[in-house]
Amino acid sequence: MTRNDGRKKDELRPIQMDKDYLMHPEGSVLITVGNTKVICNATIEEKVPPFMRGEGKGWVTAEYSMLPRATESRTRREASAGKIGGRTMEIQRLIGRALRAVVDLEKLGERTIWIDCDVIQADGGTRTASITGAFVAMADAVAKLQDAGKITHYPLKDFLAATSVGIAAEEGAILDLNYLEDSAAEVDMNIVQTGKGQFVELQGTGEESTFSREQLNELLELGELGVQQLINAQKEVLGEVALRIERNMEAVK
Amino acid sequence: MTRNDGRKKDELRPIQMDKDYLMHPEGSVLITVGNTKVICNATIEEKVPPFMRGEGKGWVTAEYSMLPRATESRTRREASAGKIGGRTMEIQRLIGRALRAVVDLEKLGERTIWIDCDVIQADGGTRTASITGAFVAMADAVAKLQDAGKITHYPLKDFLAATSVGIAAEEGAILDLNYLEDSAAEVDMNIVQTGKGQFVELQGTGEESTFSREQLNELLELGELGVQQLINAQKEVLGEVALRIERNMEAVK
Amino acid sequence: MTRNDGRKKDELRPIQMDKDYLMHPEGSVLITVGNTKVICNATIEEKVPPFMRGEGKGWVTAEYSMLPRATESRTRREASAGKIGGRTMEIQRLIGRALRAVVDLEKLGERTIWIDCDVIQADGGTRTASITGAFVAMADAVAKLQDAGKITHYPLKDFLAATSVGIAAEEGAILDLNYLEDSAAEVDMNIVQTGKGQFVELQGTGEESTFSREQLNELLELGELGVQQLINAQKEVLGEVALRIERNMEAVK
Amino acid sequence: MTRNDGRKKDELRPIQMDKDYLMHPEGSVLITVGNTKVICNATIEEKVPPFMRGEGKGWVTAEYSMLPRATESRTRREASAGKIGGRTMEIQRLIGRALRAVVDLEKLGERTIWIDCDVIQADGGTRTASITGAFVAMADAVAKLQDAGKITHYPLKDFLAATSVGIAAEEGAILDLNYLEDSAAEVDMNIVQTGKGQFVELQGTGEESTFSREQLNELLELGELGVQQLINAQKEVLGEVALRIERNMEAVK
Amino acid sequence: MTRNDGRKKDELRPIQMDKDYLMHPEGSVLITVGNTKVICNATIEEKVPPFMRGEGKGWVTAEYSMLPRATESRTRREASAGKIGGRTMEIQRLIGRALRAVVDLEKLGERTIWIDCDVIQADGGTRTASITGAFVAMADAVAKLQDAGKITHYPLKDFLAATSVGIAAEEGAILDLNYLEDSAAEVDMNIVQTGKGQFVELQGTGEESTFSREQLNELLELGELGVQQLINAQKEVLGEVALRIERNMEAVK
Amino acid sequence: MTRNDGRKKDELRPIQMDKDYLMHPEGSVLITVGNTKVICNATIEEKVPPFMRGEGKGWVTAEYSMLPRATESRTRREASAGKIGGRTMEIQRLIGRALRAVVDLEKLGERTIWIDCDVIQADGGTRTASITGAFVAMADAVAKLQDAGKITHYPLKDFLAATSVGIAAEEGAILDLNYLEDSAAEVDMNIVQTGKGQFVELQGTGEESTFSREQLNELLELGELGVQQLINAQKEVLGEVALRIERNMEAVK
Repeated sequence: MTRNDGRKKDELRPIQMDKDYLMHPEGSVLITVGNTKVICNATIEEKVPPFMRGEGKGWVTAEYSMLPRATESRTRREASAGKIGGRTMEIQRLIGRALRAVVDLEKLGERTIWIDCDVIQADGGTRTASITGAFVAMADAVAKLQDAGKITHYPLKDFLAATSVGIAAEEGAILDLNYLEDSAAEVDMNIVQTGKGQFVELQGTGEESTFSREQLNELLELGELGVQQLINAQKEVLGEVALRIERNMEAVK
Repeated sequence: MTRNDGRKKDELRPIQMDKDYLMHPEGSVLITVGNTKVICNATIEEKVPPFMRGEGKGWVTAEYSMLPRATESRTRREASAGKIGGRTMEIQRLIGRALRAVVDLEKLGERTIWIDCDVIQADGGTRTASITGAFVAMADAVAKLQDAGKITHYPLKDFLAATSVGIAAEEGAILDLNYLEDSAAEVDMNIVQTGKGQFVELQGTGEESTFSREQLNELLELGELGVQQLINAQKEVLGEVALRIERNMEAVK
Repeated sequence: MTRNDGRKKDELRPIQMDKDYLMHPEGSVLITVGNTKVICNATIEEKVPPFMRGEGKGWVTAEYSMLPRATESRTRREASAGKIGGRTMEIQRLIGRALRAVVDLEKLGERTIWIDCDVIQADGGTRTASITGAFVAMADAVAKLQDAGKITHYPLKDFLAATSVGIAAEEGAILDLNYLEDSAAEVDMNIVQTGKGQFVELQGTGEESTFSREQLNELLELGELGVQQLINAQKEVLGEVALRIERNMEAVK
Repeated sequence: MTRNDGRKKDELRPIQMDKDYLMHPEGSVLITVGNTKVICNATIEEKVPPFMRGEGKGWVTAEYSMLPRATESRTRREASAGKIGGRTMEIQRLIGRALRAVVDLEKLGERTIWIDCDVIQADGGTRTASITGAFVAMADAVAKLQDAGKITHYPLKDFLAATSVGIAAEEGAILDLNYLEDSAAEVDMNIVQTGKGQFVELQGTGEESTFSREQLNELLELGELGVQQLINAQKEVLGEVALRIERNMEAVK
Repeated sequence: MTRNDGRKKDELRPIQMDKDYLMHPEGSVLITVGNTKVICNATIEEKVPPFMRGEGKGWVTAEYSMLPRATESRTRREASAGKIGGRTMEIQRLIGRALRAVVDLEKLGERTIWIDCDVIQADGGTRTASITGAFVAMADAVAKLQDAGKITHYPLKDFLAATSVGIAAEEGAILDLNYLEDSAAEVDMNIVQTGKGQFVELQGTGEESTFSREQLNELLELGELGVQQLINAQKEVLGEVALRIERNMEAVK
Repeated sequence: MTRNDGRKKDELRPIQMDKDYLMHPEGSVLITVGNTKVICNATIEEKVPPFMRGEGKGWVTAEYSMLPRATESRTRREASAGKIGGRTMEIQRLIGRALRAVVDLEKLGERTIWIDCDVIQADGGTRTASITGAFVAMADAVAKLQDAGKITHYPLKDFLAATSVGIAAEEGAILDLNYLEDSAAEVDMNIVQTGKGQFVELQGTGEESTFSREQLNELLELGELGVQQLINAQKEVLGEVALRIERNMEAVK
């Protein structure tokens, strides 16, 4: 039983990450996962939100949006609607929370990292592609901070990537669902993990359906497999900056 | 090592569910979990949202809110702020999605069940208490529909309850966190399960932290334990209506 | 001619006030007037709005809301609509203004008392029940301020309660209208009075109708009767705190 | 003791009503009461709001606004703030409700009368001037409807005008307060009455103060005096149209 | 070929400017251009927006609105809609930008001039009438500032007025379009010029049509003719204040 | 005197247009003008806005947005702010109006063309680049309509492109301003023209400055030069579709 795009059940779609994609941001990556394309930009702001001032710690926050024609039929702009929808809120909170888990906020100092993930083409997995790409943009932006002597120690403790897994009626557990697969899946799970294989976020949902403990275990296996491949791709595109993260990983062993 | 309120690691807080709490709603429950109190009301509307018309299927949707002084210091009303915050959106989407997993929407017919969860006192676990209480309000409201001859078959396929589990720095894995425990926890997970022990939702988050596969397993054991106790409490308060659900559970064996 | 619930024309519905209803607020009362139930919470904030800073005086402000199913058919949440309706605005302005009339704002010092009135069940007279219950919550909250030594003199100058009166097509002038009576009334009047029988607010409205000076006088008599009974109930629930108010009433004789 | 502008306690400010003030509206009046100037326009719309369709009855609704420099210091536009304030809501609800009391909505037929009151200069009493001027604009607009043969019977049952009364620290009860008087008054009351002297609205407020039954009676006397003078001015400006109203008044004697 | 109101192609409509129209604003003009009537008020605020503080320079900003019945059929209030429309935004940005071009912001000092243009009757050309009237209100308001000794040098460098020109299907190029002409025009252009004939703004639009360089030149001739007549009217109404502007014009020759 | 990027006064920046840039839209172009990059998508919707129904004519409307880091420092999202700013409104109205001028709306039939211009990198001239790129996306989308047999005659009457011109303090009149030039320019003008050299829009603004008739003429010459080069680039990228437009241009000669 092959999938609608010919992949095997445990096969990721082709990945590409173009670093330094735009000229203005401190970190900028265009991530492509199959037909899904997300521009991930990282901005360093030299202050923190009011509720954190004076604590000597930094902050990471994220915003997520889709171009109206990222989708097959045109989606109304949230700016025109005058408010941000629930799905967008949920995703941008997830991205920020996930990234914060691998940042030593004290080493970052009183700064905010703004992450902007703008989906220009959507074919499933936009939130997990956003996390994977945003990690690279953030890693690059904080490397520049260190190179400029603004921070002493590189503050990222580990790599971080995300993928989706799900249960399809015919194929069973599958990795990295495209839009068609996602629409038809009975169970849908997003997994965010570190380079050491620790979980950061796990969000599994039965879509008008449920799943057993055995199915959960099968999904977790697949997800781990996918995340480690994504982290390998991150290491390649980050080059020397990846070494700084690896040194930090070793230090806390 | 005992917990801040003297409970054991695998012990739920005292539960109470007052059915028929308010006079107007079709289903109305005041659920009390320790110091957390949520009014859960179910409304039957004899139509579905525009995107579902003519399909012969029903819908379940939820709204969640907190009184300003449900919390220790006063929280600004979302109506005054003019918009619903991200946390609220996330919770109300979760409640609706979870409840839909145990409703046979075709048996419900072209009707919407509106669930309103209003937290009047908060001490941790408001979203899981909302799901547990809302299930009872919904079960009661659809029983009245059946009693009135508007639907032929009782549409709830299984019981549904939710609890939280987490990892505390000292106690390790604990069940049903109160507010103080939740604030200090390194990992926080919400588990929504059915009477048959199937997962409906699993949302685990490392709070600026991560968790291993072993820790995940430990949390899942605790969660399952808690959910089954909550479902026993639901059965008791639902009385004869519980039998209708049990018959449906057996039918699909 | 008896009323739809068997009361006499000058008879209030049964009243109950549960003090210390919730655990977090400085003052908290669940007021029940017939089938109308309102949670009234008082919060002390140790600052005043910007336009009053530095004047050495305090402030009292109120917010009012209804649960969606406080009413017979579900009412849309104002937070979902994104704005507060005219009726709500009118009521919360009335509550704040009425309470301020019996507070010596200088004795209160530079503090704000936030009053939150949340109607959980509505059967007419929610705004007058809110005022009557909120007075008790406020009286209790400021007593705690005095007990904690934060203010020297108890700042409430008199009691304050409110009721509605109206003119029904058949019964004529009646006291404390329930929802059915209110919907059918030709004239509707809200009366807010002090323990000394002084008027604080008087709002009479012909509902697509008008009223004469004689009818007005009849309504005022009924209202006064009702308010004094409500104030007696307040004294009982306030206990020792009522004595502080009575001492203030005598002092200005 | 004379008032700050030399008037006697029971003296109205000079009144002027310019009918047909603007070219587009069906009824248009510029009312001047002392220094207060309000443009009152009436629009006839050939449909009613959705909740009234098919009942064969009409509706009257009002909107109220102030130019930013109607006031001594500039007031922010509500359109810029993105929402309508509580005071505006309260006033426009009052205007609509008051006008509806003298309209036979069945004779009006399924039409909406939109009343727009735009204060171009404010010196106290803007809401009562709005009601007085809007009545004339409305009377004129419905006369045109009748002249065009769209309605058979003239639908206004009586005249309607409004004024304010209040209690000043030195002068005691006074009629038609200007802005300075209004700011200093201990008690402020708006009275809306018909040509037959019936009350339509009565809104009395102690401004951080209270008032006795005797004071109330004194205020009502003054108010009645003022309203009848305003109605005389309306009759004069309405000319022939006033006769249609008077005939209706006699018919229901 | 005469125009629908009998004017020649290069003829302005009758102009009137009533200075000191309202009592509160520092500068207040009712400008009448044919049937178009706009109240233009200027407010002096003794501070500048945050982004300009400490630069020793002033600012000019404008707001524009229409009464609902300024137009033939009622237009919904932007305050009721909860947001300002694109057309209004465009116009108020234009008015502010145009006025700033003739103000020496350094001579003005750290002050903001708020311009409010409220159209009470619309018959085409409301934005150009607003600019022409607002200039006079502003000129008057800053003259009072100088008279009060708050500024040393009169800060207006030149006169400023605006008119519209357009191309009609039959008449060709015409000056100062009324509403009917504007609706039918193929090309519509707004011209803002100074007393010295310099352009400040030029906005030409083909309405589902286009225009040639020759047509453009013809429109510019007409516009210049109209603006100079409007400036003559401004000089007349400004009296002595006009001399201050003329002295400034000579100084920079 | 050379410009800050070495260009001559009448020299455009390098242009590139990538057609079929995204997979979902009916027309999709990434336009690059120097460092300015805009994704222009065209969507065909098979209906028109309510006010146009039944007239047998189509409509063209546009939305414009910038990614937060299109700019040097991060710009807040309009969706987060909850409203669309004045500059955005102005630009999107301009784009829609300009494109409509070259579309035969009757030949288009009752359809709406939605144009979405999303600036991913900004360095001046984003609105003119948007128009130039959007024309190509629209031309392509309507060609597909014709190829699918949904419309009989190709509805674009002419080419359309836009550029900016301005007056710099040192260089005088210059073509196609980048961000630094635009910020410093005394006069700024946007010119939208057709392939036949007709004007569609002309928006010239003195930035706290003014300009003479001679300067205007100089700017118009430069602008015409630039637009014709842009139209040549459009023809190249449109290939066969350009011929359909050229045939329409000849037909109306």
